[in-house]
Amino acid sequence: MHLADLQTPALVVDADLLEANLAAMAARWPGATLRPHVKAHKTTALAHRQAAHGAEGFTCATIREVEGMVAAGLGQDLLLANEVLDTRRLGALVAQGARVTLAVDSPETVAAAAAGGVREVLVDVNVGLPRCGCRPEDAGALAGRARAAGLAVRGVMGYEGHLQAWPDADERAKLTEEAMATLLAAHADVGGDVVSGGGTGTSACNPWVTEMQAGSYALMDSAYTAAGVGYGQALHVLGTVVHVSAARPDMPAYAVADVGLKALGMDHGNPTIPDAQVWFCSDEHVTFAPEAPVRVGDRVLVVPAHIDPTVALHERMHVVRGSVPDDAEVLESWTVDLRGW
Amino acid sequence: MHLADLQTPALVVDADLLEANLAAMAARWPGATLRPHVKAHKTTALAHRQAAHGAEGFTCATIREVEGMVAAGLGQDLLLANEVLDTRRLGALVAQGARVTLAVDSPETVAAAAAGGVREVLVDVNVGLPRCGCRPEDAGALAGRARAAGLAVRGVMGYEGHLQAWPDADERAKLTEEAMATLLAAHADVGGDVVSGGGTGTSACNPWVTEMQAGSYALMDSAYTAAGVGYGQALHVLGTVVHVSAARPDMPAYAVADVGLKALGMDHGNPTIPDAQVWFCSDEHVTFAPEAPVRVGDRVLVVPAHIDPTVALHERMHVVRGSVPDDAEVLESWTVDLRGW
Repeated sequence: MHLADLQTPALVVDADLLEANLAAMAARWPGATLRPHVKAHKTTALAHRQAAHGAEGFTCATIREVEGMVAAGLGQDLLLANEVLDTRRLGALVAQGARVTLAVDSPETVAAAAAGGVREVLVDVNVGLPRCGCRPEDAGALAGRARAAGLAVRGVMGYEGHLQAWPDADERAKLTEEAMATLLAAHADVGGDVVSGGGTGTSACNPWVTEMQAGSYALMDSAYTAAGVGYGQALHVLGTVVHVSAARPDMPAYAVADVGLKALGMDHGNPTIPDAQVWFCSDEHVTFAPEAPVRVGDRVLVVPAHIDPTVALHERMHVVRGSVPDDAEVLESWTVDLRGW
Repeated sequence: MHLADLQTPALVVDADLLEANLAAMAARWPGATLRPHVKAHKTTALAHRQAAHGAEGFTCATIREVEGMVAAGLGQDLLLANEVLDTRRLGALVAQGARVTLAVDSPETVAAAAAGGVREVLVDVNVGLPRCGCRPEDAGALAGRARAAGLAVRGVMGYEGHLQAWPDADERAKLTEEAMATLLAAHADVGGDVVSGGGTGTSACNPWVTEMQAGSYALMDSAYTAAGVGYGQALHVLGTVVHVSAARPDMPAYAVADVGLKALGMDHGNPTIPDAQVWFCSDEHVTFAPEAPVRVGDRVLVVPAHIDPTVALHERMHVVRGSVPDDAEVLESWTVDLRGW
């Protein structure tokens, strides 16, 4: 199939950039030292590629992601790096033979893990991001409570999410070292083999974790590109120009493509379009001023401001090789099968 | 089923507010004068309710919405109020007996309509929003071109989207009158029975259209509420508090609920939470400072900043009666079956 045959809007993945990204991260974090985060792509076909590059376990953000990974035969060692209060669906997977490790950060989440049939946990430690994670000084006691509840404590996790897109690489490295010192101190109180953390933005400056949770590196994100963390922007949204408006006395020339709010994660702002100024997005449209004239029917490449929530809006992603948006072959179409909760 | 049994995040719809909204709009625009826009809810079960209130035709924004409405038995008179260049899927529906009218605004979209088997069109006229729609002075010629291509021209449409949330109601009415004067002048050149336009924000001040395309009124949107257009906020996202953090010397108290970027349309900014200050959203979390202490496991009501793209992220919406988030009965669960393209 050719790119021209795709109905738009459509997620398109550059096959060669994806492969280069997977190989580069696997070289830095070989085998089980990389625990790719599937929230970034929500696609088990892509996770299989990551497994082919050596990953043995994966990180998930939702119960649905864990269930989907088990269904895809990738349930050997799944970490749900998130707090969950109704763990019955996870317990059912464990009872079927999947290995599921759950983050806990409070007495309530420890009790929920035990009640639902989860057997293994990591103590989630706050290392500076105001989100989940216990106070570092509470980690040891929480591990004791978990063990008393019959749970195996594999170690700790701590996500330095506030540092991932830190603009200055040297500062990012220094702050990551401080955050990981906090995590390692908590680990000394908790025990276990695992120190899990990190992300694409700190994957080159965090040698302290035993497993790296990076996810964005596969498809990449413009915020990480701006922070200079390497890896190539492999995912875009392909659109079709459905309207052009010539310049008028009260309005410059503009064009409209069929990529709107329902096809784009918008939390980081408007998407960008090469050689064009984006004006605004509507539900199904992006209005933009192109630098060179475009015609109705032309294809355009839209760069989402944030990949993760963009992927969550699409049923499929298409792996292509060639010059997007004009002349590329569609090699494979993957279902984004880990959406929802 | 009780609210407490719902897995979160979950869309919840207040049954009584929804019904009141549907009744109020149907009273203002009875029978076929209302052509509800399904893009606002993407749910055929809700469209059936709108039909029960008298609507005979519906407005759609995507081919998938048209297909889904036909499959749900609601294909008597569907308007795809959007420009489409590959119309073969629409032609297939027409060949099966559905009535599908398509917006056209250029020679290219006229040609595409005819080529794919569409038989009826409206000429889409720009009435001030820089998006689709032909120049008003071109509408007559475009209608002639459509008729020459064998298409039946039912009339015109023009969407005054830039006025929908205009803060001052008197100004909104005046600007709507001007926009509709443009549309009516184009209609005189085009002919046909239909003048289609309007939305929730102008539904009380636009007596010029023969059919009102309002959609948001059913579930409502905080932007429209702020503009004082009436109707009640019937849809929220139900979340669960998964983490609380007590005040510390370097950080005030905060809590985290499981409603994040992948559960919320973010183009209008952060959601709100009653009696709380929202700090930021992550993929699966919202971090907020509650005015009164909350506990892990508490349910919270999250008000999305924009309903339409929020709905597009969810598989289901749950119709409830009672006091959300604490004590409500789940009456029905509807599949959001018009997602995608």
